[in-house]
Amino acid sequence: MKKLLFASDYMEGAHPAILKKLVETNLERTAGYGYDDFSESARNKIREACAAPDADVYFLVGGTQTNAVMIDALLRPYQGVIAAKSGHISVHEAGAIEFGGHKVLEIDQRDGKIAVEDIERIIREYRQDENRDHMVMPGMVYISQPTEYGTLYSLTELKEISRVCRENHIPLYVDGARLAYALACPENDVTLKDLAMLCDAFYIGGTKCGALFGEAVVIPEHDYIPHLFTIIKQHGALLAKGRIAGLQFDTLFTGGLYDNIGKTAIEAADKIRKVLDEKGYRQAFHSPTNQIFLCLNKDQALALSEKVELGFWENTDDGNTILRIATSWATGPEDVEQLTECL
Amino acid sequence: MKKLLFASDYMEGAHPAILKKLVETNLERTAGYGYDDFSESARNKIREACAAPDADVYFLVGGTQTNAVMIDALLRPYQGVIAAKSGHISVHEAGAIEFGGHKVLEIDQRDGKIAVEDIERIIREYRQDENRDHMVMPGMVYISQPTEYGTLYSLTELKEISRVCRENHIPLYVDGARLAYALACPENDVTLKDLAMLCDAFYIGGTKCGALFGEAVVIPEHDYIPHLFTIIKQHGALLAKGRIAGLQFDTLFTGGLYDNIGKTAIEAADKIRKVLDEKGYRQAFHSPTNQIFLCLNKDQALALSEKVELGFWENTDDGNTILRIATSWATGPEDVEQLTECL
Amino acid sequence: MKKLLFASDYMEGAHPAILKKLVETNLERTAGYGYDDFSESARNKIREACAAPDADVYFLVGGTQTNAVMIDALLRPYQGVIAAKSGHISVHEAGAIEFGGHKVLEIDQRDGKIAVEDIERIIREYRQDENRDHMVMPGMVYISQPTEYGTLYSLTELKEISRVCRENHIPLYVDGARLAYALACPENDVTLKDLAMLCDAFYIGGTKCGALFGEAVVIPEHDYIPHLFTIIKQHGALLAKGRIAGLQFDTLFTGGLYDNIGKTAIEAADKIRKVLDEKGYRQAFHSPTNQIFLCLNKDQALALSEKVELGFWENTDDGNTILRIATSWATGPEDVEQLTECL
Amino acid sequence: MKKLLFASDYMEGAHPAILKKLVETNLERTAGYGYDDFSESARNKIREACAAPDADVYFLVGGTQTNAVMIDALLRPYQGVIAAKSGHISVHEAGAIEFGGHKVLEIDQRDGKIAVEDIERIIREYRQDENRDHMVMPGMVYISQPTEYGTLYSLTELKEISRVCRENHIPLYVDGARLAYALACPENDVTLKDLAMLCDAFYIGGTKCGALFGEAVVIPEHDYIPHLFTIIKQHGALLAKGRIAGLQFDTLFTGGLYDNIGKTAIEAADKIRKVLDEKGYRQAFHSPTNQIFLCLNKDQALALSEKVELGFWENTDDGNTILRIATSWATGPEDVEQLTECL
Repeated sequence: MKKLLFASDYMEGAHPAILKKLVETNLERTAGYGYDDFSESARNKIREACAAPDADVYFLVGGTQTNAVMIDALLRPYQGVIAAKSGHISVHEAGAIEFGGHKVLEIDQRDGKIAVEDIERIIREYRQDENRDHMVMPGMVYISQPTEYGTLYSLTELKEISRVCRENHIPLYVDGARLAYALACPENDVTLKDLAMLCDAFYIGGTKCGALFGEAVVIPEHDYIPHLFTIIKQHGALLAKGRIAGLQFDTLFTGGLYDNIGKTAIEAADKIRKVLDEKGYRQAFHSPTNQIFLCLNKDQALALSEKVELGFWENTDDGNTILRIATSWATGPEDVEQLTECL
Repeated sequence: MKKLLFASDYMEGAHPAILKKLVETNLERTAGYGYDDFSESARNKIREACAAPDADVYFLVGGTQTNAVMIDALLRPYQGVIAAKSGHISVHEAGAIEFGGHKVLEIDQRDGKIAVEDIERIIREYRQDENRDHMVMPGMVYISQPTEYGTLYSLTELKEISRVCRENHIPLYVDGARLAYALACPENDVTLKDLAMLCDAFYIGGTKCGALFGEAVVIPEHDYIPHLFTIIKQHGALLAKGRIAGLQFDTLFTGGLYDNIGKTAIEAADKIRKVLDEKGYRQAFHSPTNQIFLCLNKDQALALSEKVELGFWENTDDGNTILRIATSWATGPEDVEQLTECL
Repeated sequence: MKKLLFASDYMEGAHPAILKKLVETNLERTAGYGYDDFSESARNKIREACAAPDADVYFLVGGTQTNAVMIDALLRPYQGVIAAKSGHISVHEAGAIEFGGHKVLEIDQRDGKIAVEDIERIIREYRQDENRDHMVMPGMVYISQPTEYGTLYSLTELKEISRVCRENHIPLYVDGARLAYALACPENDVTLKDLAMLCDAFYIGGTKCGALFGEAVVIPEHDYIPHLFTIIKQHGALLAKGRIAGLQFDTLFTGGLYDNIGKTAIEAADKIRKVLDEKGYRQAFHSPTNQIFLCLNKDQALALSEKVELGFWENTDDGNTILRIATSWATGPEDVEQLTECL
Repeated sequence: MKKLLFASDYMEGAHPAILKKLVETNLERTAGYGYDDFSESARNKIREACAAPDADVYFLVGGTQTNAVMIDALLRPYQGVIAAKSGHISVHEAGAIEFGGHKVLEIDQRDGKIAVEDIERIIREYRQDENRDHMVMPGMVYISQPTEYGTLYSLTELKEISRVCRENHIPLYVDGARLAYALACPENDVTLKDLAMLCDAFYIGGTKCGALFGEAVVIPEHDYIPHLFTIIKQHGALLAKGRIAGLQFDTLFTGGLYDNIGKTAIEAADKIRKVLDEKGYRQAFHSPTNQIFLCLNKDQALALSEKVELGFWENTDDGNTILRIATSWATGPEDVEQLTECL
C-alpha cells in the first residue's frame, strides 16, 4: 500500500486552475519583471481584496526570500527586527536576516505568538537603557499569521500590536506564508482589509497555498519603501518572467480561489481534529488552521510514521515526539478518510 | 496591426513540453527543496550531458540570484571576482555581488569578452604589488557564454582562461544564462562536456532558454563547495517546491529539447542576419547567437521601433542607437518574415 | 567636594610607563602597519608569556572591533557564534557581528558564564535536527574571561569547553577585554599558557587594562586564519602607525607590568568587597575581579550616586538597582578610602 | 651610514605637543566614547575653524575605517559611491566599501582627480538608462584633498563638483587624510570653511598629519546622519577612550599647530622639488603637496633606493619606476639636505 502523505502543504504542483491559465496564456508575449498585464491585473485584484487602492504590490518567489528582502528594506542598517524565538526568521532561514546585516531581536512566544506587552517591554527597555546607543535599535516587528505553530492572532491582538508599533514609529510586517489557511478559518477574525489597515507591509503566501511558487507583498501606502524594485533585484529576488508569478496571483484572486483553497484545507483539518479528539490524541498546540501538531510517545510515533508520512516537528524534553499533519487545497476526502483509519 | 515583438528572449511562458509535463505530474506528491524524483532525474540527465558523473547540480530561480549565490560561495570574504566591465554582474545586477560583500574587479572587454592576457595581468599585478595585502585579492574569474553582446568564447580561449585559473588556484565560473543559444550555434565549439572539464562551476540557463524560470548550477567536482544548500537558503534562493525547477530541467534534457530550443532561435537569427547583411545594415558586434545588435541612426531607430518592439541597448557617442533583436525557441518563421519585411 | 569616580576602568589615559615609552621613542622612524620593531618585540614577548612560540599576534584598537574581525574571520558565511545571552557581542556591540553577516546563537548564562552542557546541547540539537540545513550552523564558541559580570571560568570549566569545541571541530575564542583582572585574581587558575593551549584565538585586552587603546589578538597556531591581515584591513581595523599599539603591548609585557596592573585593581576591589561585606551590602554576582555589582534599593542607589559616580547596570524586576564599581590600575588607596567612607 | 627615510608621512609617533598634552592630562578621569571635555573642546575648535557652528564632529581612528563608516552611513543600501579609479577606496582599502555592501562606481581620473563632467555623465547616464532600476544608483561622490597623487582640487573645481552633487541631491564627501598638506600649500585655495560650505561630510586627517592616530569627521549640518554614533559602534570604530582622539585634535587645533605641521612638510617638499628641477628629474605628477613622485629608470631607482628608503609607487608600462618621497611635520632641514645630496 502506498504511504499516505501529510508531511507538508507544498507537496503538489499547483491548483489546476493556475496550470490551466498558464497553458492558455503561454504564447502571449509580454514585458518582463512584472511590467505585464497579468501582474497588473493581479495587483489590482489584490488592492481591491485589501481595500487598499494605493498599495504597492510586488510578487516574489519564496518566503525566506520575501522576509529577507522586506526586513532589509524596512530597517535602517543599525536596526533589528523583533520576532518570536520560534519565528521562521529566527530559526529556519539559515541566517538570511543576518546575511542582510540585521539582528533578530528574539522575544518569548506562547504557542508561536508574541504578546504586545513583550513588544512594548523590549522597546521601552531599549529606550530607557543608558547604553542604548551601543545596542541594536528595535526597528520593526515581525509576526506571522498563522504562526509557525498554526495559531492565530485575533483582530484585537493585531490591533494592539499595530497600536504599539505606530506609537513607537516602527513598522509592523506580517509573514503570511500560509495566510489562506488563516483567512478560511472559522476562528479567524482578521481579514485582508484588516491587515492592510494595521500593517505597514505583509505578504500573501502563494507557495504553500496552491501556487507553483510566489508570495505577494502588499505595502498599503504607496512608495512607503522607495526603490523597492531595485532592492528586490539586489537581493536576487526579481523574476525575469514576472508574469508567471503575476498570473498565478491573478488566478488565485479570481472567483474566490484563494478563499476556496483555504477552506478545503481547513475542512479537512477540522475533520481530522474531530477524530483526534474522539480518539483521545493530544495536540501540542491549539491550532485551528491547516496544521495539526500531534504529541505522541515514541512507540505511537513510530507506528503512525510507518503508515503516514508526517512532518517531524521536535522531540520534547519529556520523551515524546511532536509530528505535524498538514492539509492543503489538495487534501481530498479520501485522504482524510485513510488518515483517520490509521489513527 | 499588432506590433512585432523582438525585445527579449523571455517574453513567452515556457516551451509547451514543459507545461505538458507540469500538468501531467501536477498531483503527484513529492518532498520539497529538491529532494524529489524529478529533480533527481534532471540532475542525472545533466550529469550525463556534461559527462560529469560526480557533479553537484542545484536548481535556482534566476540569473542574478545564481551569480550572487555562486560568487559568494566561491570566494573567501577578502576576495573579489574578475569580470568584464560589461559583464552582467558589473552592470545589471543592482549591486547584488557587493551586497554579498565582494568587489567586482572589472577589466576591459572586447565584444563582451575578456582576454586571458588581461586576466593574467590583473592576477600578476596583484601578486607583485607591495601593497597587495591592502587590496582585494582576485579570487575567481567570471565569464558568460554567450556574453552580454551575444559573442562566444572559443574552446581555445576557454582552455586558456581555464589554464590560467588553475595555475593560479582560483575557480572559473561561467554564466550560461543563454547557454542554449551558444550550444546550438554553428560557430560554437564549446560543449557542455568542455564546460564541465574546464570550469569549477557554471550554470545552464533556463529562464531565457524556454523554461518558466530556473537555472541549473553544475559543479563538476562533488562537494567542491561544502554546505552550498545552506548558502542557497541563506540567500533566499531555495525553492520550497524544488520539483518545479527540477521537472523543467528534466524536460529540457529529455529528447534533445534544450538543443532544439537553441537551434530554433539560432536559425531564426541567422535568417535575420542574412537579410540585414543583404540590406546593408550595420551590426554593433559580431554576434553569432540569438541576439543581434543593430546600429542605426536616430531616424532609422525611431522608424523601426514604431513597427517592432526591440530592446534598447545604448546610444553611442557618435549619435547612433543600438537596438537589440532577440530570437528564441518561440520565434516562428512568420515572425521572422514579418520582421524582415520591416527592415 | 569633587565626586568620586568609579564608573569604569577606562577613565584615565594610560599607565605612565606607556606614555614614557611613547615619549622616548617618538622620533624614531619605523615602517607602518605593524611591521616595526616595537610590534615585533611585543609579539615575541606575548608569544613567550603564552608559551606559544608559533602564535600569530595582531594588535587591534578596541574590543568590539576585535570581536567583529575575529568572529568574521573564524566563521564561514553560513555559520553563527555561540555566546551567552549576556555576552558583549549579544548585547553591547550595536549589531557588529550581524553587520558581518553572522547570527549570534544566544544561550542561557549563569553569572555571565555559559555551561559546557548548554554548548553541547545546541550543537547536538543542530546536528540532530532534520531541518539543520535550513538553520544557522554553530560555528564557534565565544566566551569572555572575565565575563561581563566579572566572573571567571575555572581551568576545569575552560578545559571542558575546549574539549567540546575540539570534539566538534569548531574554534573556541576568548574575549579578554579585562584579562589582566582575571590573571591577577587569587581565585583564578587560568593562565595565558592555558588560554594558548585551550583556545584557537583570544585577545589580551589593553584598553581596559592600562593602555591608551589596543587589544592583542593571539592565535596559537601559525596561519590558522590565512590572510587575517587583509581581513583586518577590510574591517577598517588596521592601524597605520601600528607601532603605537605594538609599543604599548611591548611595555605591558615588560617587567610584569600587565600583571601589576591587574594586581593593583584586584587589591583595591578586594578591600572594597571586604567593607561591603562588613556593612551588609548585597552584591548581584559573585565577582572576584575588578568589577563589583552592588544591589541597592532606589533610595540607597540615589544617595550613593550623589557622592560617587558609578556605572549604572540595570534595574531589577523587584525594584532594585544594580550599580557597578570598577577599579583599575589607577585606583589609589585614597580612592578606596574615600569610597568606603561613602558606603 | 643610516639609511634616509622618506617612505611615508607616518613614520614617527606624534607631534611632541600632542605627547606633552597626553602626559599632562593622563590621570584626569573622564567619561568614555567621546563624552569628555577634551573631545568637546576639540569639536568646538574644529567647528570654529570650519565656521560651522552646528557641525557634528566625530573622532575615528583611521582613514579606511572612516571612509567605510561614512560611505555606509551616507548611502542607502542600493546606492554606490562615485570615485576615481585611483581613489583610496577603489584600490587600497581591501574591499572595505564592498564589505559594507556598496559598489564603488569608478570613473576615470587625471592626476588623481575626477572631472565634474565625468560625475555629471555617470549620473546622467544612470538616469537616462532604461535599465537603471537594475543598476547601482550613484548615491554620493567621494574625492580626496589632496588626492592619492598629491594633487589638489581648486576652489573652482570643488564648487563645480558641489553644485552637481546638490543639483542631483547626492552628498559630497571629502577624504582629507592628508588635509594639512593641502591647507598649507601655497597653490591651494580651498579652506576648511570652503569644505564645510561645499561638502556634506569630510574628514580632517590626523594619522598622517602629526597625530598618533585619528581622523576628525565633520558633518556641517547637525543630525544630517541620524544615529551616526551607533553606526560607528556597529562598524567597530568607536573608541572607548574617546578622549585620546579628542585630546589630539584639541592640540592640533590650538595655536595653529595643524597649519604649522602642514607648512613644515610643504616647505621641505618645495626645497626637494627645487633641487629635483635643477637636476632635471622627472616627476610623474605635478604634486604641490607633501608627496613627490619621482619617475626613474630601473638603474636610477635602484641606486637611489640604496641610500634612501622611498615609497614604491608603481612600475610604468614603459619600464620606469615611480618612487614616492613623502615629507611630514617631522622632516627636518638636515633630512632635506641629506636627501638632496643623494639626488
